[in-house]
Amino acid sequence: MTDNRPTEFPPIPAPDDHAESAARARQDTLTKPRGALGRLEDLSVWVSACQGECPPRQFVRPRVVVFAGDHGVTASGVSAFPSEVTAQMVANFEKGGAAINVLAEAAGATVRVVDIAVDSEKPLSPSIGEFRVRRSSGNIAVEDALSADECAASIAAGRRIADQEIDAGADLLIAGDMGIGNTTPATTLIAALTGTEPVAVVGRGTGVDDAGWARKTAAIRDALYRASSVTSDPVALLRVCGGADLAAMTGFVAQAAARRTPVLLDGVVVTAAALVADRLAPGARLWWQAGHRSTEPAHALALKRLDLEPIVDLGMRLGEGTGAAVALSVLRAAVATLALMATFGEAEVSDKTP
Amino acid sequence: MTDNRPTEFPPIPAPDDHAESAARARQDTLTKPRGALGRLEDLSVWVSACQGECPPRQFVRPRVVVFAGDHGVTASGVSAFPSEVTAQMVANFEKGGAAINVLAEAAGATVRVVDIAVDSEKPLSPSIGEFRVRRSSGNIAVEDALSADECAASIAAGRRIADQEIDAGADLLIAGDMGIGNTTPATTLIAALTGTEPVAVVGRGTGVDDAGWARKTAAIRDALYRASSVTSDPVALLRVCGGADLAAMTGFVAQAAARRTPVLLDGVVVTAAALVADRLAPGARLWWQAGHRSTEPAHALALKRLDLEPIVDLGMRLGEGTGAAVALSVLRAAVATLALMATFGEAEVSDKTP
Repeated sequence: MTDNRPTEFPPIPAPDDHAESAARARQDTLTKPRGALGRLEDLSVWVSACQGECPPRQFVRPRVVVFAGDHGVTASGVSAFPSEVTAQMVANFEKGGAAINVLAEAAGATVRVVDIAVDSEKPLSPSIGEFRVRRSSGNIAVEDALSADECAASIAAGRRIADQEIDAGADLLIAGDMGIGNTTPATTLIAALTGTEPVAVVGRGTGVDDAGWARKTAAIRDALYRASSVTSDPVALLRVCGGADLAAMTGFVAQAAARRTPVLLDGVVVTAAALVADRLAPGARLWWQAGHRSTEPAHALALKRLDLEPIVDLGMRLGEGTGAAVALSVLRAAVATLALMATFGEAEVSDKTP
Repeated sequence: MTDNRPTEFPPIPAPDDHAESAARARQDTLTKPRGALGRLEDLSVWVSACQGECPPRQFVRPRVVVFAGDHGVTASGVSAFPSEVTAQMVANFEKGGAAINVLAEAAGATVRVVDIAVDSEKPLSPSIGEFRVRRSSGNIAVEDALSADECAASIAAGRRIADQEIDAGADLLIAGDMGIGNTTPATTLIAALTGTEPVAVVGRGTGVDDAGWARKTAAIRDALYRASSVTSDPVALLRVCGGADLAAMTGFVAQAAARRTPVLLDGVVVTAAALVADRLAPGARLWWQAGHRSTEPAHALALKRLDLEPIVDLGMRLGEGTGAAVALSVLRAAVATLALMATFGEAEVSDKTP
């Protein structure tokens, strides 16, 4: 179904009102002063609303999907690392040695890696290459990242991956990114969608130096100029100044919303895709929470536009889904309170709160 | 040993320098840009230093001890809840229905409750009454919270409980509080030790109304006046304007440091005790991290004085150790990265970072 018109989404339903009201009411009966669990209460209510059930069920199959893709714009010297690191890190993910492997396991989640557009001759392995769209994306400073067909195929890939995971039982999704240079198109997308000057939002990515930062800012300025006529068309924007991995993540987080499945967003790259996704599928953002606040300036801007408040703020700037994985433990804690705490009545505790 | 001179502590050792250096160096070899895990890196290094080992060991027996005690100052109308709720909540802890039970379990920790000074005829149960010092503490607005002997016994109780837990294998300790009215003495202690005007730091506790807030502020002002001659003597301060539970928590977190055992602090009540403990056992604070930032104004003041930055900031204001329990998951995640991630060499990933 989604493959026929991969860039069109059905109207996105809102999370369940009734479950939300029931969850809010139940939080007020639990043995603690009303509101004393702060953000945990709001998060537990959100999960109830997403699941359409109160009390909510604890997550049994949270799933991280890391979208790997390279970016031609690295030729402009925008990153501290060479492009070959993308493929090396994908191998590291497959062996379980990367931060996202360790942090996902700590939070009770599993990890899948997909090669959407790694800069390698062939897919890195058959199992992760099923959705590969092309070898690297174009250098957005000088050319379109993708053709129209490639862009549609990338969005469709993300949607299909979300479908696969949800059909296999995933009850919470996290998108992660891996791709040297990917904060450059991500920042470009956010600048384009928020009408922001590049200098105000360009960050250090994985740690580029001053000269690299200047090159990155120039590349983003050039990409924004190229994209100036398509800022109101989210699909065209992904094609002109995004990339295959960003388009796939866009499809992934939008499809999760269409399938009523909650998502924890990660850092600037995933949130850039989310910002595009909420244009493509308005209302999708109601199915997402911001896992963390990264140190990238554009991230804060995108979160503000999506009206999302990060769960944790730990100065992380790695991507891979790592910030969202850390936040997952907090989300689990929130669910546990609403699902497992005793009520005043059950515990025979006096409820004299005003 | 500690019982002979319960209020005297040996010099507190610093966490291990060598392990700290090794941990910092190892973080820089892991497959991610240097510093990209932000606060998680600092936390992992701290755990290594506390354990004296690199890589650090994952916590196998984190333990929450909830110190229950009532406060005579509730007679001054400082709380939204009646005193009998303390005993009811202790029963709720024992049945596993409270927030701390649920949040500790979610973080892989276990919970012990001790009745230090609950306002009940007898200890609530024999198993939790071993260290009970008295029935409630005095109303600090008009009288000393404790006698000198009771104060020493309370500190000794906290130390003994820390010893018991560490001897039983606890590798991380969390102190939690339960006691209607306990933010009043906690705020008094913090105001006394930081020379702050009550109106600047008095919070709503579990949710007192405007009139109650005014009564609470007046009680704290009266208690501070009574304590004005003893602010440089931490033990006397606990006796005059603290309470048995606060004195026990003071002994507990100081003894943990003396025993080289890391601690996650919780909210305003535990942190008030910690502020006293660092006076009693200078340097103890190096063994602590601030679990969370509560909404109580005095909490921020105490954390600043202790030079501690909260791990999470979720608008929580419950006590019981709940904020620290949520932070424990983040601390575990930090340990996991340093213990389990692959190095650049192991993963054959290019390390071209500056």
